[in-house]
Amino acid sequence: MERVTAAANHPSTPFQPAVPTEPRPPRTAQVIVASTRAAAGVYPDRTGPVIDAWLTERGFTLGERRVVPDGDPVGAALIEAIDAGVDLVITTGGTGVSPHDLTPEQTLPQLDRLLPGLMEEFRRRGAASTPLAVISRGHAGIARGRTLVINLPGSPNGVRDGLGLLTEVVDHILDQLHGVDH
Amino acid sequence: MERVTAAANHPSTPFQPAVPTEPRPPRTAQVIVASTRAAAGVYPDRTGPVIDAWLTERGFTLGERRVVPDGDPVGAALIEAIDAGVDLVITTGGTGVSPHDLTPEQTLPQLDRLLPGLMEEFRRRGAASTPLAVISRGHAGIARGRTLVINLPGSPNGVRDGLGLLTEVVDHILDQLHGVDH
Amino acid sequence: MERVTAAANHPSTPFQPAVPTEPRPPRTAQVIVASTRAAAGVYPDRTGPVIDAWLTERGFTLGERRVVPDGDPVGAALIEAIDAGVDLVITTGGTGVSPHDLTPEQTLPQLDRLLPGLMEEFRRRGAASTPLAVISRGHAGIARGRTLVINLPGSPNGVRDGLGLLTEVVDHILDQLHGVDH
Repeated sequence: MERVTAAANHPSTPFQPAVPTEPRPPRTAQVIVASTRAAAGVYPDRTGPVIDAWLTERGFTLGERRVVPDGDPVGAALIEAIDAGVDLVITTGGTGVSPHDLTPEQTLPQLDRLLPGLMEEFRRRGAASTPLAVISRGHAGIARGRTLVINLPGSPNGVRDGLGLLTEVVDHILDQLHGVDH
Repeated sequence: MERVTAAANHPSTPFQPAVPTEPRPPRTAQVIVASTRAAAGVYPDRTGPVIDAWLTERGFTLGERRVVPDGDPVGAALIEAIDAGVDLVITTGGTGVSPHDLTPEQTLPQLDRLLPGLMEEFRRRGAASTPLAVISRGHAGIARGRTLVINLPGSPNGVRDGLGLLTEVVDHILDQLHGVDH
Repeated sequence: MERVTAAANHPSTPFQPAVPTEPRPPRTAQVIVASTRAAAGVYPDRTGPVIDAWLTERGFTLGERRVVPDGDPVGAALIEAIDAGVDLVITTGGTGVSPHDLTPEQTLPQLDRLLPGLMEEFRRRGAASTPLAVISRGHAGIARGRTLVINLPGSPNGVRDGLGLLTEVVDHILDQLHGVDH
């Protein structure tokens, strides 16, 4: 939090988002929907469009949404996005405890630095609606020092809570990764 | 949370426990008390009977409660229960920071998938009573894809908080593990 | 939490700090400031003096505060303090997500036992002031069974929150590590 400490010497308050000293570069994002059934077309991908809309509204340039079966295809899509240098990857689905819920296992090996507090806060907010939110096993973290990755659940409520939290922190995280001084 | 998303297409609300479509199979549970002093009979095992009573009330078939010294015997008892295919193993004791508190170390190697949010929520609820609740180092997770394991502390208050939380989530977790659709 | 259970047999309430049965031995502490800019003298070390004052007030004997550049020097200073058998090491700075924020990476390999609940609670308290508190990646844990280490951020607000939390738990943790029965 060195940058934040630095900010303490200036009029801006520490730990508060500040206006960056230069315009943000265009940012890119990728949504990965982990759902064997949605990938097979047996039911609609409901959360992907919601995430796409949130990203577009915040000025992200979107890669085409990927809807893939649970398991290895999630990891493959994730690696592809990280290889492409995408700034933000949001996955949805596969974070529960069913045998086919494998998104956290596919994600963890790609993260160099974990952000456990992000998922704690996500689960905590969800717990205000339902105790089952505490079961979510998703990870958040940084891949190759530049891509922020977060695993959201496949439920509309979980996605709503996750996007609400990201709204409050994503600019600050990406600015720090990109070396924009606050 | 794919199953939960799937439920969104049905009248039941996502993230809410729903009536399973088939009767639950009989479920089994094992309590392991980690306490060198209780195992030596120098003081009574106070939390084991409380956990047994909670399990019986919820319809679990119980193996005989194990009261074992801290350390390796906890791991051995845990492996035995997992080998037997028990659905739920609750340990009590050995989660603090004293040199003899070794239950988390004995447990972690047996878990294939961690449920960090369960312990977060457990500690958070405990913190409402005492800040010392945050010191508890217990793990929760799934062993061999079918046994839910949770480390509760050895204090009556900690066990009360832990069972309160389990009451809200255990059916959903075990149903997901067993492939019961919600 | 075996000791706490034991306490349940005595008039003191479980999970509540109790008067130890013997006077505490003198305790030692070390502050490590991770800041490339403070180490180079380009701006003042603001949080180190605050932590020193808190430690002195609580009766700790302090080693000379170390102000070191981010990265490897943090690990080196940490190992030196642990080698010296210091009871409590507090680091400040380097817990964010900027490329130079490397304190958690330098700390984790030195910890035998993690105390994740301490950082959860720290982040949760910070989140009441600012959502950005959830980004902090610091660790807390025990090194070589006797040194409590905690990574605080470099911001004055983060340090204030962290010391507030430590005030409530540090005596209990160190007593447990030192075998003082509660």
